[in-house]
Amino acid sequence: MNLIAVDSSGQTATVALVNDGVLTGEYTINHKKTHSQTLMPMLQTLCAAVEYDLHTTDAIAVAAGPGSFTGLRIGAAAVKGMAQALNKPLIAVPTLEGLACQFYGSEQLICPIMDARRAQVYSGIYRFVREDNVMRMQTVAGEAAIPMTEQINRLNAFCEPVIFLGDGVEVHRQVITEQMQVPYIFAPVHKRLQSAGSVAARALMMLEEGKLPVEAGTFAPEYLRPSQAERERAEKLGAE
Amino acid sequence: MNLIAVDSSGQTATVALVNDGVLTGEYTINHKKTHSQTLMPMLQTLCAAVEYDLHTTDAIAVAAGPGSFTGLRIGAAAVKGMAQALNKPLIAVPTLEGLACQFYGSEQLICPIMDARRAQVYSGIYRFVREDNVMRMQTVAGEAAIPMTEQINRLNAFCEPVIFLGDGVEVHRQVITEQMQVPYIFAPVHKRLQSAGSVAARALMMLEEGKLPVEAGTFAPEYLRPSQAERERAEKLGAE
Repeated sequence: MNLIAVDSSGQTATVALVNDGVLTGEYTINHKKTHSQTLMPMLQTLCAAVEYDLHTTDAIAVAAGPGSFTGLRIGAAAVKGMAQALNKPLIAVPTLEGLACQFYGSEQLICPIMDARRAQVYSGIYRFVREDNVMRMQTVAGEAAIPMTEQINRLNAFCEPVIFLGDGVEVHRQVITEQMQVPYIFAPVHKRLQSAGSVAARALMMLEEGKLPVEAGTFAPEYLRPSQAERERAEKLGAE
Repeated sequence: MNLIAVDSSGQTATVALVNDGVLTGEYTINHKKTHSQTLMPMLQTLCAAVEYDLHTTDAIAVAAGPGSFTGLRIGAAAVKGMAQALNKPLIAVPTLEGLACQFYGSEQLICPIMDARRAQVYSGIYRFVREDNVMRMQTVAGEAAIPMTEQINRLNAFCEPVIFLGDGVEVHRQVITEQMQVPYIFAPVHKRLQSAGSVAARALMMLEEGKLPVEAGTFAPEYLRPSQAERERAEKLGAE
């Protein structure tokens, strides 16, 4: 099975190719340039480097949100365009589950946090549980836009070691350090942020779990919150 | 601290840049092309994409072996050239420790295996142990060129769950499945092979542990075994 994976949900732009269970290539950039300029050229560079023929693609996995609104929209536009051109389905991987897959192999609680501004984080709590010779992802607390302190209270109640990762780590490092009452670690440099390889791995797990790919036409990112423009419009309409 | 990381010890060619604790970019290719053609252009592509100035580099981390003789030599030549031109030191990261870092956060035994041909694998056994808010790598069994069955016997004696990764997994999957008597998993697609981000992470840990970088002039890869040419020469000399 040939899979393209894309994640542009945060500042990181990352693309990967998986061919028959092997990560043939991965290209990740965490730089100020906007994804609209970088994402497709990155995929083009990667495909050329490994002589990958786009027409052999079976499905395209994409980090489906939550995350940066603009980032998610660029990613969605890119993969929908490709999927429709190639007539292939999309696998919508929840961003936080893709991040959590960075810690496949760990049995600790995994808490990806993405800075959502407005005093909130996008976060969930996940765990890998051994089942025969694989580990299965379990959702301990589903994705939500919540205050960091609320997520910390939840984690303290579990009385288990926690791994934090995501771009929210730097923003909320101090409050985590002050308020966590159970052992925790922060992800090291190579597992801190989004990776399309991790999105591809989660996509393959989802297929094994029987979750079906979606038609490109029906795919929409999961923002979890209305955008600023939508909020402002609602407030304006409410005020009229 | 600005770090370049390079791993060409296996079929995978992988380069990464870390700037002040952030993985700014990573580019990984697992394709038939030889590293001599791909490694430096990959680094050039990555540096250009993130506007990285080579002269701001503090050190260059390299997967120092064991691994493919040719791959290690190409990597060594590339990083020695760069390090000498930039007048910066090298951080020699044992290949198997870099691989094991893919599973930072796990408390299971980690057994990277690289196919060494001639009925052997390059392998070691590692473990991460929690210490305050970080995890420290411990070497349970040091790197060696040994038969896979010998490594399996060792692992069975520990009576603990094991994670296998590395390009040796596919080659030795059957013998592992048949002879392992303790629970084990194989690394999923995104954590199976070399990653320069993982090499960079291990390099930063080594610095924290007080291990010193080395002068480019004194660095040589650790092959663990004599090369085929050296063996044949020794056999010929012995026979004379």
